[in-house]
Amino acid sequence: MQSTALLTDRYELTMLEAALADGTAHRRCVFEVFARRLPAGRRYGVLAGTGRLLEALTAFRFGESELEWLREQGVVGEETLAYLAGYRFTGTISGYEEGDLYFPGSPVLTVQGTFGEAVLLETLILSILNHDSAVAAAASRMTMAAGTRPCLEMGSRRAHEEGAVAAARAAVVAGFTGTSNLEAGRRYGLETIGTAAHAYTLLHDDERSAFASQVAAAGPGTTLLVDTYDVQRGVARAVEVAGPGLGAVRLDSGDLPTLASEVRAQLDALGATGTRIVVSSDLDEYAIASLAAAPVDSYGVGTSVVTGSGHPTCGMVYKLVLREAADGVMRPVAKAAAEGKSSVGGRKVAARRLENALATEEVVVVSRDEDAPDLAALGALEENERLRRLVVPLVSDGVVDTRYVGAEGVARAARRHAASRAELPRASHRLSDGDPAIPTEVLRPR
Amino acid sequence: MQSTALLTDRYELTMLEAALADGTAHRRCVFEVFARRLPAGRRYGVLAGTGRLLEALTAFRFGESELEWLREQGVVGEETLAYLAGYRFTGTISGYEEGDLYFPGSPVLTVQGTFGEAVLLETLILSILNHDSAVAAAASRMTMAAGTRPCLEMGSRRAHEEGAVAAARAAVVAGFTGTSNLEAGRRYGLETIGTAAHAYTLLHDDERSAFASQVAAAGPGTTLLVDTYDVQRGVARAVEVAGPGLGAVRLDSGDLPTLASEVRAQLDALGATGTRIVVSSDLDEYAIASLAAAPVDSYGVGTSVVTGSGHPTCGMVYKLVLREAADGVMRPVAKAAAEGKSSVGGRKVAARRLENALATEEVVVVSRDEDAPDLAALGALEENERLRRLVVPLVSDGVVDTRYVGAEGVARAARRHAASRAELPRASHRLSDGDPAIPTEVLRPR
Repeated sequence: MQSTALLTDRYELTMLEAALADGTAHRRCVFEVFARRLPAGRRYGVLAGTGRLLEALTAFRFGESELEWLREQGVVGEETLAYLAGYRFTGTISGYEEGDLYFPGSPVLTVQGTFGEAVLLETLILSILNHDSAVAAAASRMTMAAGTRPCLEMGSRRAHEEGAVAAARAAVVAGFTGTSNLEAGRRYGLETIGTAAHAYTLLHDDERSAFASQVAAAGPGTTLLVDTYDVQRGVARAVEVAGPGLGAVRLDSGDLPTLASEVRAQLDALGATGTRIVVSSDLDEYAIASLAAAPVDSYGVGTSVVTGSGHPTCGMVYKLVLREAADGVMRPVAKAAAEGKSSVGGRKVAARRLENALATEEVVVVSRDEDAPDLAALGALEENERLRRLVVPLVSDGVVDTRYVGAEGVARAARRHAASRAELPRASHRLSDGDPAIPTEVLRPR
Repeated sequence: MQSTALLTDRYELTMLEAALADGTAHRRCVFEVFARRLPAGRRYGVLAGTGRLLEALTAFRFGESELEWLREQGVVGEETLAYLAGYRFTGTISGYEEGDLYFPGSPVLTVQGTFGEAVLLETLILSILNHDSAVAAAASRMTMAAGTRPCLEMGSRRAHEEGAVAAARAAVVAGFTGTSNLEAGRRYGLETIGTAAHAYTLLHDDERSAFASQVAAAGPGTTLLVDTYDVQRGVARAVEVAGPGLGAVRLDSGDLPTLASEVRAQLDALGATGTRIVVSSDLDEYAIASLAAAPVDSYGVGTSVVTGSGHPTCGMVYKLVLREAADGVMRPVAKAAAEGKSSVGGRKVAARRLENALATEEVVVVSRDEDAPDLAALGALEENERLRRLVVPLVSDGVVDTRYVGAEGVARAARRHAASRAELPRASHRLSDGDPAIPTEVLRPR
C-alpha cells in the first residue's frame, strides 16, 4: 500500500508544528469519533470501514517523497519534519466492532495517544469511516427490504474508482452477497458477479448470435440480458439458445413488477422453471421493497447503494474529549455549545441494553479517566435484561489486531452486522422515516 | 501509479472472453459517454476528471498479480488472459475539454478502438468522470455564488480518502482557489490551506496560550479560529495576541451573517481593519449566496462540495453507438427505447453556438462515419454568431496528449471552465431550479 500520510488536512501539520514548539504535542490525549445525529428519518447507523482504517494506519508513514514535498512547500519546518520522519502511531485505539449499529452520540472509535500522534489521524479516520458507514447504512436498508433474496452491488461506475472498491466492501459488510468490482473481489475476498451489458448484444449482428456466443463461452448457467430490443422476444430467444437450464435472465429497464411477472410466466411456460430473474434498474431500498411480491430472485443495485441512498456521507466528527493539563492531570474538554455543534467532554464507553434479545437502549458512560470507565456504573439489570459491551480493542500500543483487517475482517464485520441488526426492535425494520431505533442514555458515574 | 486494470466490472472481462471466442472482439467500435439528463433543476453540467482518466489509462495494465488472481478465480480462461497480458489501449479518444460545460446528450467523450480494447475501459471511465463531474458541478455553483471571494475546499473528511483528493482537484477545476488536502496539493500542484482546529485550543490550558502558540509558530498573518468558547472574547484575544496585523479569523459555527457583521465591527474597532474573516460552517451554494452582503472574505466549504451538493454522482453512461458489422461496414446501434433509457446511435461531435459571445445552443451532429462528422453540416451562421468546437483529441493511437494531465491539466481545465461559464446566458447564473441553460439540437446530416 502506498503511503497514506498525506491523505491529511494541512492544519493537522500546522497544529503539530506549533504544539511541538510549545511542548503540548506530548500531552496525553483522548480523541473520540461520533455522529451527533443520524441522517433525518434513519433508524440506525452502521459502522463500517474499521478494517480499512487499520490497514491505512499501517501505511501512515512519511517517507522521503512526502517529507521532501512538505519541505519544498514550506508546510512545516525541520523540527516537525524530523518528528514526521519517525512517526509511528504507538497509541491505543478501541471502538465498536465493524458492522455494528450506532446511534447519535455512540462513541464508535476512541484514539488514545499524545496530541501529536493522535491529531495527525483525524482526516484519514473520518474519510474512511464517514464514507464506508454511509454506504453500509444504505446497504443495510436494502438487504433488510430484500429479505432472503440476495443483493448484488453493481455501482462502481457511479463512484470514485477507489471509493467504488470501498463501497463494494461496505455493502458486503451490510449483507450484500457480491459485487461487480474485481478489485474489491481481489482485495477483500468478495464474490464477484456479472456477465454482459447491452453493448454485447449490440456488438453482434443480432440478439440470437450474441446469446449464442455468450452461452458458448460461459455455459447455459449464465445470465442473459434480455431487454436490449424486446423483452418477450429476448426471453424466448434466450431459452431457445441456452435451453430450459438457462441460469438467469436480467431485466435492466421497464416497469419491473409487471415485467417480472410476465417474464416468470413466460419462462415457466417454456419449461425454464429454474431460470432465475435478476433485476437491476435504478433500484433503491424502496424499489426493492416494492418488488417483494414480484417473482424476482435477486437485486442488482448500483447508484443508490454507492452514494448512500440520499446520504453520501455521515456526520462523524473527531473530537478531543480528554487531555493532560499543565499539572499532568487529565481533564475533559469540549467546545462551547453552538447550535448543533455541542459535544460532551470526557472519555466514553458504551453498551447496548437488551431485553429478551432485543435492544432497548444505548448506554454511554462518561469518565474523566484516561482508561475506559467501568460498566459497573450501568447499575443493576432487570430480569430478562443483559448488556452487550460495544467497545473492543483494535490497536494496542501501536499493534493492530489483525482479526479485523483484510478478508477476515470483512467476514467478521458482516456477521457482526447481521447479529446486531437482529437485535433491533421490529418497528425499526420499516423503511419509513422515524426516530432512532433506541434511545441513548448518557451516564456520568462520578 | 498502481495498476488500474481491476477497477473494472467483472462483466467487461466475461464479454471480452466471449467476444474473443467468436471473433467479434476485433470489430471496430465507437463508444460514447454522455448524460441523458442533468440533475433536476440544474442549469448545466461540468465535465471534470479527464486528466485523471488519462493518467489512469496509462496505468491500465494487467500485471502478473492481476492475471494470477483472475486465473485463480476462474474469471476468464487462458486465451483471454494472454490478451489481457498484452493489453495496451492503442485506439483514439476525443472529448470535451476538461472544465467545459455539458448539457443532456452532449457527447463528452468518444472512444474508438476494437470492441476488446474499448469495452474494458467502461467502469474506469465512468467512475472517474461521474465522480469528478458531480463535484465540479456543485463547486461551480458555489464559486458563481461567491463572486470574487475565494472558495476553499475543506471536505476531505466527508469523502472517501482517495475520492477526497479527486474532489479537491475537481473543485479547483470549477474555480476553488485551494484545498486543505495535502495529497491533492502534491499530486496536482494545488494551493493548500489550513491552520488550526478547535482541538488546538482545547489542548491548551486556555485560549490565549493556544493563540500565542499558533502565532509564535506561524506568525501574525495566520488565521485564528475564534469560536471555541465565546466569539467576542475570542476575537479580542486574537487581536491582543497577534496584534492588528492578524491575518484572519475563522468562524465555524453560529448565525454567520450576523456574526460576521459583529466580528467585522469588533475587528475594525480594534484597529485590525486588514484582518480577514473566513467562514466555514456547513456551507453550500445557498449559504454562500446568503452571505453575499455580509463582510466575509472567503468561504471554507466541506461536505456539500465533495458530495456534489445533493447530487453525488452524474448519470453519465458509456454506450456503444457505432460498430463494424459482419460485412465490414460501420453501423449505428442503440438499445430499444425504454422509459428514460433511450440513446441515439451513430458517432457524434458537438459545437456550441454563440451569439454576441453568449451561448445560445448546443449542436450535436450525428454521423454513421467512424471519423468525426464535419461541422459544415451545421449550416450557415447568422451575423453575430459563431460556433465553438467542443471536441478535442485526447489520445491518438494510444498516445496521451500530456497537456491535459497533471498540474498543467488542472490549470488548463480551470481556465476552460471560467471561459465557458462566462459564455452562459445571465439567467443561468441563478441558483434556483430551472431548465438546462441552453437547448440541444441534434442534427443528422445524412
